[in-house]
Amino acid sequence: MNIFEILGMCAAIITTAAFMPQVYKTWKTKDTKSLSLTMYTSFFVGVSLWVVYGFYLESLPMILANGITAISALILIRLKLKYK
Amino acid sequence: MNIFEILGMCAAIITTAAFMPQVYKTWKTKDTKSLSLTMYTSFFVGVSLWVVYGFYLESLPMILANGITAISALILIRLKLKYK
Repeated sequence: MNIFEILGMCAAIITTAAFMPQVYKTWKTKDTKSLSLTMYTSFFVGVSLWVVYGFYLESLPMILANGITAISALILIRLKLKYK
Repeated sequence: MNIFEILGMCAAIITTAAFMPQVYKTWKTKDTKSLSLTMYTSFFVGVSLWVVYGFYLESLPMILANGITAISALILIRLKLKYK
């Protein structure tokens, strides 16, 4: 791993971690009122495309970060549909 | 541009666009109460690192998407500090 790959991995950890409190909060409170289904569905499509592009660039940080974020978005979408 | 670069550009447009309604809403309402300064500061650091990593991978979609998101996060941080 060179310095840029380490920076990429730091980027992956930070932006993925920034998304976690929302998932945790929604999971705990089951309050999905202020979540936009359109936004999270688009977001899910977007990060899934980043995963595909990450495989093309052979970038592990991109695949990991966007893969985990895609799963998180999917959890939020499921909670939104369940508790709406 | 090959198909993967087009997918990457679509990913960039979708995830960047998903972030815009928040910026617009905060800009309009000046209501920053529910925004977490810690979250947006971390997010700003994270996407800035993605920009650096994007230059390393020579990926235009990564540089553009994360560059615009970094500026958006910076606007939200500034609004938060101004109207807190």
